[in-house]
Amino acid sequence: MAHSTRCSLNSTAFDEPSPPQAGKMWEAGCPPLEPLSFPLSVNSRKPVLAVEHPLRLEPHPPPAISCVSMTSLGILLSGRGSNFIAIADNIASGKLRARITAVISNRPDAPGIAEARARGLNALVIPSKGLPREAHDRAVAQALRDSGASLVILAGYLRLLSPWFVQQFPSRILNIHPSLLPAFPGLDAQRQALDYGVQFSGCTVHFVDEHLDHGAIILQKVVPVLSTDDDHALAARILAQEHLAYSEAIALVASGNYKIEGRRILPITGNSTAKSSF
Amino acid sequence: MAHSTRCSLNSTAFDEPSPPQAGKMWEAGCPPLEPLSFPLSVNSRKPVLAVEHPLRLEPHPPPAISCVSMTSLGILLSGRGSNFIAIADNIASGKLRARITAVISNRPDAPGIAEARARGLNALVIPSKGLPREAHDRAVAQALRDSGASLVILAGYLRLLSPWFVQQFPSRILNIHPSLLPAFPGLDAQRQALDYGVQFSGCTVHFVDEHLDHGAIILQKVVPVLSTDDDHALAARILAQEHLAYSEAIALVASGNYKIEGRRILPITGNSTAKSSF
Repeated sequence: MAHSTRCSLNSTAFDEPSPPQAGKMWEAGCPPLEPLSFPLSVNSRKPVLAVEHPLRLEPHPPPAISCVSMTSLGILLSGRGSNFIAIADNIASGKLRARITAVISNRPDAPGIAEARARGLNALVIPSKGLPREAHDRAVAQALRDSGASLVILAGYLRLLSPWFVQQFPSRILNIHPSLLPAFPGLDAQRQALDYGVQFSGCTVHFVDEHLDHGAIILQKVVPVLSTDDDHALAARILAQEHLAYSEAIALVASGNYKIEGRRILPITGNSTAKSSF
Repeated sequence: MAHSTRCSLNSTAFDEPSPPQAGKMWEAGCPPLEPLSFPLSVNSRKPVLAVEHPLRLEPHPPPAISCVSMTSLGILLSGRGSNFIAIADNIASGKLRARITAVISNRPDAPGIAEARARGLNALVIPSKGLPREAHDRAVAQALRDSGASLVILAGYLRLLSPWFVQQFPSRILNIHPSLLPAFPGLDAQRQALDYGVQFSGCTVHFVDEHLDHGAIILQKVVPVLSTDDDHALAARILAQEHLAYSEAIALVASGNYKIEGRRILPITGNSTAKSSF
């Protein structure tokens, strides 16, 4: 069981001891999570990982548990950030082994920023108003990098990301959407679901690519649509599942124990506890 | 409990005794099921229904149970018709109170037609090859009408219906599709789901309108997509749910105990046993 206390760059509370899977992780395109730096490319990352991954290079007695390095999250929000609060709560309660290195809002009055400050987190406002999209995105990316974040978590960030921003952090930006994508992308997904008359909706955590609500799906949860539902009731039940799904998905990505086949993200066999822990 | 043995045009095994809801059913656009006749229009149907619905006109002692009139199904298929077989089996076992008045194939060699003949059903081949779409559809519609069918059930009917055909039988043609619509309409829905990387798919029974896989949803069932799934494995698990869903949806439509709000089909409160019986 020594592996579970190793100083791994991608440890989370949901890590199961497992042998190193360096080859698989390479092929799968899901390396362990080093802090964000940019520009990133597959070629530039390979040698860095080969040096830095302790499981491959140091088959010695495990270091003290205090050495365990946790996934670092940079949160982007524009409003109350209820998913940010759920993630922070899961971290505080020990359910999710991660740390929040920055909470960034493009709106000075976002309640999520006040919440971040109240929790003593690194809360930053980088106003977007009047700025060209990419100029604002460059400032945000720099702040994320400065904070040491290794994953970017969109939590109600009401701003389209520039292609430049997305390209900086391939498979490192996560978003959550209140529908079973690809159904009902875009705004008012719950209202769209009701209007269409589906009997099941849900939420989707996905990697962000350059298309709206389109990237590879990390995790989905199903929510039945009840005949008594209006959009508020449905949204509330979906939101309760979002609060579980996002931390679960972060744990899976942080663990690195998945592989990507086309658009499919498949947990690597023998390490499926991350999914069932929430 | 007298109502359950009444000579109702829309009785099924899942009918629960309930007071007549003529007003609601009118407004909802879901009249009880008289045999197909055409051309149909809302105006032409109203007076017919007002005369023919026994629950409204004859509050007398119920007739003998042998008088119970069952929903009459006209099945259209082009292949093996596994959904037809599941429906026929559910009828044979008494789970679904309905009768099959015609099984019609556009292909002479469809295994489903042989199966229908083996079961002693009214099996008809109306070849589509070389015929203009609407001419073929007119022959099929006539055969359905002649058989006394009150619902048209598409069970792997590999032929687009003409707008003329759809307009003849508004909210009387049912189809099943192997995905959670509106996701993955069209061919190879299971392959589409795998390629997209969704974690849940399923099946959808819906009314047929003039757009592909688009009509109002009657019933959906969810099927998880497993990391070990290929399209055959996923299709088989979805098909098992289709075999339940189609009979369940037919029972709901036959009962008339639903209302339509926009595209939403909502079971009328107090008569939800149809959904839970499969």
